[in-house]
Amino acid sequence: MQELLRTYPVVFETPVAWGEMDSLQHVNNIVYFRYFESARMAYFDKLDFWTYMAETGVGPILASTQCKFRLPLTYPDNVFVGARISEVGDDRFVMKYIVVSHRHAKIAAEGEGVIVSYDYRELRKTALPEEIKGRIRVLEKNDGS
Amino acid sequence: MQELLRTYPVVFETPVAWGEMDSLQHVNNIVYFRYFESARMAYFDKLDFWTYMAETGVGPILASTQCKFRLPLTYPDNVFVGARISEVGDDRFVMKYIVVSHRHAKIAAEGEGVIVSYDYRELRKTALPEEIKGRIRVLEKNDGS
Amino acid sequence: MQELLRTYPVVFETPVAWGEMDSLQHVNNIVYFRYFESARMAYFDKLDFWTYMAETGVGPILASTQCKFRLPLTYPDNVFVGARISEVGDDRFVMKYIVVSHRHAKIAAEGEGVIVSYDYRELRKTALPEEIKGRIRVLEKNDGS
Amino acid sequence: MQELLRTYPVVFETPVAWGEMDSLQHVNNIVYFRYFESARMAYFDKLDFWTYMAETGVGPILASTQCKFRLPLTYPDNVFVGARISEVGDDRFVMKYIVVSHRHAKIAAEGEGVIVSYDYRELRKTALPEEIKGRIRVLEKNDGS
Repeated sequence: MQELLRTYPVVFETPVAWGEMDSLQHVNNIVYFRYFESARMAYFDKLDFWTYMAETGVGPILASTQCKFRLPLTYPDNVFVGARISEVGDDRFVMKYIVVSHRHAKIAAEGEGVIVSYDYRELRKTALPEEIKGRIRVLEKNDGS
Repeated sequence: MQELLRTYPVVFETPVAWGEMDSLQHVNNIVYFRYFESARMAYFDKLDFWTYMAETGVGPILASTQCKFRLPLTYPDNVFVGARISEVGDDRFVMKYIVVSHRHAKIAAEGEGVIVSYDYRELRKTALPEEIKGRIRVLEKNDGS
Repeated sequence: MQELLRTYPVVFETPVAWGEMDSLQHVNNIVYFRYFESARMAYFDKLDFWTYMAETGVGPILASTQCKFRLPLTYPDNVFVGARISEVGDDRFVMKYIVVSHRHAKIAAEGEGVIVSYDYRELRKTALPEEIKGRIRVLEKNDGS
Repeated sequence: MQELLRTYPVVFETPVAWGEMDSLQHVNNIVYFRYFESARMAYFDKLDFWTYMAETGVGPILASTQCKFRLPLTYPDNVFVGARISEVGDDRFVMKYIVVSHRHAKIAAEGEGVIVSYDYRELRKTALPEEIKGRIRVLEKNDGS
């Protein structure tokens, strides 16, 4: 399990809630996107992106996201959700996610999201600040090496 | 069904989402509180409470809530959620809710909430404004008579 | 709006719930996947896929899904969620979704899902039954022509 | 915090998810009922109630629930949710809940639920089995003494 998550600089852990299983008796598909979101927020915390946004008006916005379901999750279990940034562009970056079931010690889902740099004062896309790019490099480099 | 909802000045309608059933194959208990909330918001809209809050800083805050489950809800169905204010105090009011299943033409749940008048600028409870009390009287009087 | 939804044989309508907005004051990203799911279930209802599954053990399973966010949704609003099947393979099909905001008369999001034919008795992928393929053809042909 | 939870034989811990805050920037009210449910399920696990139900058809059903909100919860935080059974009747018991914020080391909410003994084969209320009553006594006695 450590091995599965090795390349992810941020890992968020949460118990599977019984009430998030649906009538097919598996964790409902939308919950995986909540897992992704929680890992994304943990990543943004490490970038101190919200402080940066409060000071400059420039912050992240989710443009698209996707998930491949590998293994149904069931209660009781704990999941580890890894997040890493795989590509950095001029005004966006791609974040990869992995959801690992503790009980099965297997990947339950993989996904990604495209996050765009957004000027919340001007209400439009903007260049990804160099400072944030630098922080991403540091975070991604420190991992697994 | 009309009869069941007759004394409720505000009625919110929504389809039952398949994904809100849990692994016991009934709508999960927390969803009833989402139904209550949606009816409460529809009621606040009719009071124009948010505009009042934007102007004065005084708005509603939910202090407590409860629900009695009468009948399990299942997909597919539509629910009608009635809201009425049954008691108005100096700094609070009590809102009653009813959830009616269209499919069964029966009450699926009943509940209530205590809503306190809150000064969001001073961060403390405050007297319920006379203007809001007046609007409540109008809304409750117009109903069912 | 009619025009936007014209090519979708199934359209699911639901109010935007106030409580589904997150702290950025927009409908939270995971809710779009609930919208997709509700449209998908409405589509499966039209295929009578669950009855087929109860009789044969063969039913649908969601293998992957994605969403592109075009426009933030806010309360109050109503959304229309269109679903259509764009590709049918040997053991799977692709469903396309569109979320249209009533208030803005614009597309709020677009998405798709890959649904695999699954034998719930044998617990493995299986060929998509000819009968289901036929029902899909009928449903897709009847639309917009 | 230990002290606040001392009389609760079951304590469930979970991180506060960013996405569960609503547009008032606090954890949405319905999430507290998810916390209660997760603690309730952890309690039922300790009673081995689901195994009992699989063998006999007799299991728990939630008849009513309520919550008093004491303190708004915000991300990031961890909550500890205590559950204890305060009263046991012929065909029901009362479960008390407490939600403690790790960040504030304070009670964020208190609640309770009435759980009825239900025969899922006969589809009607039934006496609470003596065996389950005994297990509750053991669990409640072992605590805090």
